[in-house]
Amino acid sequence: MFSVWISELAARSGASVATIKYYLREGLLPPGEATGATRAKYDDRHVARLKLVRALTEVAGMRLEQVRAVLEAMDDDSRSWHDAVGSAHRRLPPPTAAEPDPESAQRVQELLDRHGWELEPDSPHRATLAGALRSLAELGHSPCDEVLDVYAEAAATIAEHDVASIEAKDPTAATEHIVVSTLLLEPVLLTLRRIAQQNVSRRLS
Amino acid sequence: MFSVWISELAARSGASVATIKYYLREGLLPPGEATGATRAKYDDRHVARLKLVRALTEVAGMRLEQVRAVLEAMDDDSRSWHDAVGSAHRRLPPPTAAEPDPESAQRVQELLDRHGWELEPDSPHRATLAGALRSLAELGHSPCDEVLDVYAEAAATIAEHDVASIEAKDPTAATEHIVVSTLLLEPVLLTLRRIAQQNVSRRLS
Repeated sequence: MFSVWISELAARSGASVATIKYYLREGLLPPGEATGATRAKYDDRHVARLKLVRALTEVAGMRLEQVRAVLEAMDDDSRSWHDAVGSAHRRLPPPTAAEPDPESAQRVQELLDRHGWELEPDSPHRATLAGALRSLAELGHSPCDEVLDVYAEAAATIAEHDVASIEAKDPTAATEHIVVSTLLLEPVLLTLRRIAQQNVSRRLS
Repeated sequence: MFSVWISELAARSGASVATIKYYLREGLLPPGEATGATRAKYDDRHVARLKLVRALTEVAGMRLEQVRAVLEAMDDDSRSWHDAVGSAHRRLPPPTAAEPDPESAQRVQELLDRHGWELEPDSPHRATLAGALRSLAELGHSPCDEVLDVYAEAAATIAEHDVASIEAKDPTAATEHIVVSTLLLEPVLLTLRRIAQQNVSRRLS
């Protein structure tokens, strides 16, 4: 454990002193240990938190108020893996989506039922899925049930490995791991799909 | 084919007259058929384009300059499915990511090699993947090769179905279908992964 002034914290984290002061004012970074009226010292937990805020804004593309909600979820004491996942997810930004309609909401429920998945009636995931399905339908590109099932099965396979990798972690690091891996593996998954699409279409051309 | 004034176009598309005028000025919507110095009539192609722009901004969360690039890709005449996919992808916004480093770029190449995937050296997908892997490593949550392989295999399964659904389409609708389904099924995939994570963790709690 080291203890450094704000200028050294900037050097170690890659964030500017102005950015650090802004994060301190906004509560995104806990205060340092006061060593006088205007000076404070910072440690490795501050460096780690700064790297996390940067990854959430730059890699996951989140706005600062979303980052704040995610950090609050991470600092929660949750009683089980499941509570931790649910609590973290509720505070994550949804992939954006349009307003759902009853027909799309019904398709979502049928999809959940086919895969034996439970989901709270007020889960934000329902509106996200239904909104996307509604837009696809309105544009004339509604996916058939078979395509949705392929997506759901692929998601289930991935989630098994995600959760297994969470369980291998020290419990105190678990919520951070859920948040970081949920968010930062999302661009990985989307990009791999795009690469795979190119390769499949090349084979068929 | 109908032909209507701008007020009726607004009513049919759900966009305001002010928004439609803005899209016309910005070139996101082709001009209507002039019927005098200041009036023009619009048809069902304008309604379809307006719905698409709305879905790309509201569901896919794209900025207008990204929407413009996507529309240009859609209007391209491409010679093969593969060209169409590649051309559309190059103009899509990448999921955001940090700057890659050589070590992460090497991990990406090894991942591609393990799955027999080709990817141009200057593809934006390389930087997106490597940037995400770099951030995960810096935060201490680097995924192991096995996890990346699970993601890649799931992406490959999905892509087979994506491309099969493209091939079933009329060629003139193919590029639009690639763009719309690539972008609008992304929130579906990410949300299904989150739902599956909750269900797997519930089972294990």
